[in-house]
Amino acid sequence: MELQSILTRENFVSSGKSKDIYRIPSGQYKGKYAFVFTDRATGYFDEKGKPVFDPGYDNVVGEIPGKGSVACKFATYFFRLLAKRGIQTHYIDTVSDNVMIVEPATPISMPEQGPEFEGSAPLLNLEWTWRNSAMGSFWRRYPFVRPCADLPQVIEAWTKDKTDTLITFDSLTGAGVMTEEEVSTVKELVKKIAQVIYEEFAARGLHVLDGKIELGRLKSGDGHIALIDEISPDVLRVCNGYKKGENRSCVNARECITTSLSGDKRRISAKYQLSAAELEKIFLK
Amino acid sequence: MELQSILTRENFVSSGKSKDIYRIPSGQYKGKYAFVFTDRATGYFDEKGKPVFDPGYDNVVGEIPGKGSVACKFATYFFRLLAKRGIQTHYIDTVSDNVMIVEPATPISMPEQGPEFEGSAPLLNLEWTWRNSAMGSFWRRYPFVRPCADLPQVIEAWTKDKTDTLITFDSLTGAGVMTEEEVSTVKELVKKIAQVIYEEFAARGLHVLDGKIELGRLKSGDGHIALIDEISPDVLRVCNGYKKGENRSCVNARECITTSLSGDKRRISAKYQLSAAELEKIFLK
Repeated sequence: MELQSILTRENFVSSGKSKDIYRIPSGQYKGKYAFVFTDRATGYFDEKGKPVFDPGYDNVVGEIPGKGSVACKFATYFFRLLAKRGIQTHYIDTVSDNVMIVEPATPISMPEQGPEFEGSAPLLNLEWTWRNSAMGSFWRRYPFVRPCADLPQVIEAWTKDKTDTLITFDSLTGAGVMTEEEVSTVKELVKKIAQVIYEEFAARGLHVLDGKIELGRLKSGDGHIALIDEISPDVLRVCNGYKKGENRSCVNARECITTSLSGDKRRISAKYQLSAAELEKIFLK
Repeated sequence: MELQSILTRENFVSSGKSKDIYRIPSGQYKGKYAFVFTDRATGYFDEKGKPVFDPGYDNVVGEIPGKGSVACKFATYFFRLLAKRGIQTHYIDTVSDNVMIVEPATPISMPEQGPEFEGSAPLLNLEWTWRNSAMGSFWRRYPFVRPCADLPQVIEAWTKDKTDTLITFDSLTGAGVMTEEEVSTVKELVKKIAQVIYEEFAARGLHVLDGKIELGRLKSGDGHIALIDEISPDVLRVCNGYKKGENRSCVNARECITTSLSGDKRRISAKYQLSAAELEKIFLK
């Protein structure tokens, strides 16, 4: 495949924080998209103006050599695994270290319905989280729950903007973003994906706490909803210290979890949580 | 009924922002609660230190003579109406201008499950909103929706704290706050209450945009979930300019609704919305 003739300015579609997207004009994959996983990395600048890489931040502050290739391999591993389990994704093939071919898809979105009103804004995309444990924002929002308590694959939908905003399934259908049938389909799909990922880590003695994915409507075929974007270790929380205890709790929570409260701001972290780099190593051996 | 012998320090249970609660020690209503609607009013202090009354604020800044009696009459009207429609509430009787007898009930709450973790906090209460129109925080959170667009009685649950936090029904059951059966019951109950209130205003040519209520478990009988606290005009949005248009919109939205965006902060207001005082007048003639 002659990538050089595809990855040109005239085929360029758009750029995300770490990926560039190109439309393939001819050949075997005509009409499909090429996802280029770049080395761009998000983070912040410290007091001395030096970039500090941190996937929790949204601004690109520099490049990490090899990052794109690692992300592409990780996503490829999970897209192929999901395909084996019969779960539809936008993935077609991986054609180089850092280039993946995917079905074009549109995010679940909605134009602003009242553009004549100041402050109206389109819904650009939805993100879907699933939670097996009460970590991160779940505990910060609902601090009556025991930190890292077991949850039964709780699924939440978020409207994506500068800050993500929780939206209930009833509001998604009530506002006309999705039909009730689509919501049922999506809940089942997210649960299946979460389960496949859970089992893949569990087979290595690891526990997936929570994760985040994007779904979209495939442009080909009947336009149904499938997993798009990527499976990224940056948005998977996985730990190597989980031990099921009584009352939905993890036996090791006391030694693993640190919480704090400063003003109204809560923080929570887990000592036994693996870094994105550690997760990547597991699947790229 | 000798109220003076009931409303004493030794029978005092607790105080809310505007209500005082007493346990009735003997007589016909032994074991029930007396709700005293006081004249206390919330608001803020202006630059000159003068109190400005505003139900949108949470701090008590003074008293408005007659406020308690009006609130008691308004709540009595709606509790009696709901009883006629077969909807269970904690209401028993109104025994003076500003005193109501109610069944003791406990809010839907949960002790903190991990008190040894800093920042843990109990769930003290849940609030339930229903929305027939995309006003207030619904539009501010989801500005892709047309301001004041029709919504099909969308119900949301909120954990009550300094700021209210949205919680999905799946999270309520997943975290063990309620069972799935209780969630179904509650959704039906809120919808029924919303419908009764809607029709009562509609009979006067008015349109209920949204409202907020509290539910609790009655201490008597089988402890099932019923409407508690009060029906207050402070948390009902009602307008006198609604006219159903196409695509879920109100024909008069363009002249009625004002929105603005300053930084990330959205505002929305409706010219044809009635004030709490106007709502009270309708039912206290």
